[in-house]
Amino acid sequence: MLTVFGSTALDTIRTPTKVVKSVLGGAATFAAISASYFLKPGLIAVVGKDFPQKYYDILSKYLDLSGLTIDDGKTFHYDGSYDETLSTRTTLKTDLNVLANFKPKVPEEYKKSEYVYLANNDPEQNVALIKEFDKIKFSMCDTIEFWIAHKKLSVIKMIKEVDAVVINDEEAKLLTKEHNLIKCAKKIMNWGAKYVAIKKGEHGSLLFYNDVIFPSVAFSLEDIVDPTGAGDSFAGAMIGYLASKNTTNLATIKKAVIYGNVLGSFAVEKYGLDGILNLNNSQITKRVNQYEKMIRF
Amino acid sequence: MLTVFGSTALDTIRTPTKVVKSVLGGAATFAAISASYFLKPGLIAVVGKDFPQKYYDILSKYLDLSGLTIDDGKTFHYDGSYDETLSTRTTLKTDLNVLANFKPKVPEEYKKSEYVYLANNDPEQNVALIKEFDKIKFSMCDTIEFWIAHKKLSVIKMIKEVDAVVINDEEAKLLTKEHNLIKCAKKIMNWGAKYVAIKKGEHGSLLFYNDVIFPSVAFSLEDIVDPTGAGDSFAGAMIGYLASKNTTNLATIKKAVIYGNVLGSFAVEKYGLDGILNLNNSQITKRVNQYEKMIRF
Repeated sequence: MLTVFGSTALDTIRTPTKVVKSVLGGAATFAAISASYFLKPGLIAVVGKDFPQKYYDILSKYLDLSGLTIDDGKTFHYDGSYDETLSTRTTLKTDLNVLANFKPKVPEEYKKSEYVYLANNDPEQNVALIKEFDKIKFSMCDTIEFWIAHKKLSVIKMIKEVDAVVINDEEAKLLTKEHNLIKCAKKIMNWGAKYVAIKKGEHGSLLFYNDVIFPSVAFSLEDIVDPTGAGDSFAGAMIGYLASKNTTNLATIKKAVIYGNVLGSFAVEKYGLDGILNLNNSQITKRVNQYEKMIRF
Repeated sequence: MLTVFGSTALDTIRTPTKVVKSVLGGAATFAAISASYFLKPGLIAVVGKDFPQKYYDILSKYLDLSGLTIDDGKTFHYDGSYDETLSTRTTLKTDLNVLANFKPKVPEEYKKSEYVYLANNDPEQNVALIKEFDKIKFSMCDTIEFWIAHKKLSVIKMIKEVDAVVINDEEAKLLTKEHNLIKCAKKIMNWGAKYVAIKKGEHGSLLFYNDVIFPSVAFSLEDIVDPTGAGDSFAGAMIGYLASKNTTNLATIKKAVIYGNVLGSFAVEKYGLDGILNLNNSQITKRVNQYEKMIRF
């Protein structure tokens, strides 16, 4: 079983061509739904009483929701604006709302999860939460600039507790104070993670394990409309694939990274979560095959 | 035969860890020496009377120099400084010197070259020069910000005259006013180039041909000391490989791109030209094999 812990949000996304308001988002939502193409994950998250029924219905279609808390108050709301290159996002507003005082609880039936993904939460909360799982085979976390800036030592402690870190390139540099991504990854592995996957957006990703470096390109796309959630979709597909295979050897993890690239590519093709909704396995398999053909020489 | 036309320079390179003064450089120098691992290219370039004998000896070891003019005056001198990430270079000084009024002449024996590479020269000069070759099978050009800013229409005219354009990502965006690299490449192909190779530095490259996109990663390196000439080395290896195979089908061009990535990776490991001097074929083959192993999944 796979458990995903993290934020479910209402996102306002502003791109040069379109603004979408209060649409379903959040790191855990993207990751869990992306993972759902490989097995049905459990979600530990909180939303407010204002959370629209239609979004609840979407979540319940893809995920086990016994870990979802509905609290008094409003749902976490993020508002961000992309520049014309779609590569730089400015945060306009972050209303934590019910997320601010959320005390996550692990449902009894989730505690046997062998795969756990900790999305971009408070690292201290992540460390406390992961201890409630007693059969973990593979745990993975991501982190963001906010935690690196405010709780860097806790981020490093969290890294000790997980098998793998997925992190984007700029955050990896910020966290490690290194410029070269190999040096970044080595530092993170020295802190205790066995695997590091550095996400580079349109440039793909780099997976590290001991002395192995596995660089992979992104799936090339001409029409990108909204990069929101691409990295979370990458991570979700990665751990979802591993959980579905129930194997964590290097060859399987490399393949999981390819699925990560592919789900990330679906995510950016539509606004918000739409890119990874209503996919079917043959679409995913087809794109993995296209990917393999694309890079062959 | 392969002819390379472009600048031979004395470079002053400033990195956070070291400054090297008036060392052998120039786009054509890097490209031609990189190509020389596949066949012996002819170089069309100009240097001044101050050009050090030791650098002349290096050029003559790798290249046919019947196209090299030694003019009264000083050699083209470039002075640039890298920031601590080694990804941004600031030009401190560009002394064109003998390059300013250079009238390139194509030696009679070069006119039969089937492969011609036009490095970052004045696009009008490139167009005039390429007409002197009457047996061209494959021609390729690069261009830089200076020409895009000052002679954009001539750059577009030049693109019509060549088979392939190699260009870095930022310059491709600047030239085409597009943000997405696929859109950039399509525009360049619409202007008349059959192949476009977009260089992305540490992120590798994208090759385009009709509807085919071939993305390739860079060879991962932990210790990069000086990125100068990496893109030129990429281009030189690419056309050098094609010329040595005397084949320009897509499969061979893909393989040529891999050699481009590999020679580019050697270039950045040492200061100035040193990274691509004194290589042997087994080192290059070894790294190509490592590259293939690295990306396999």
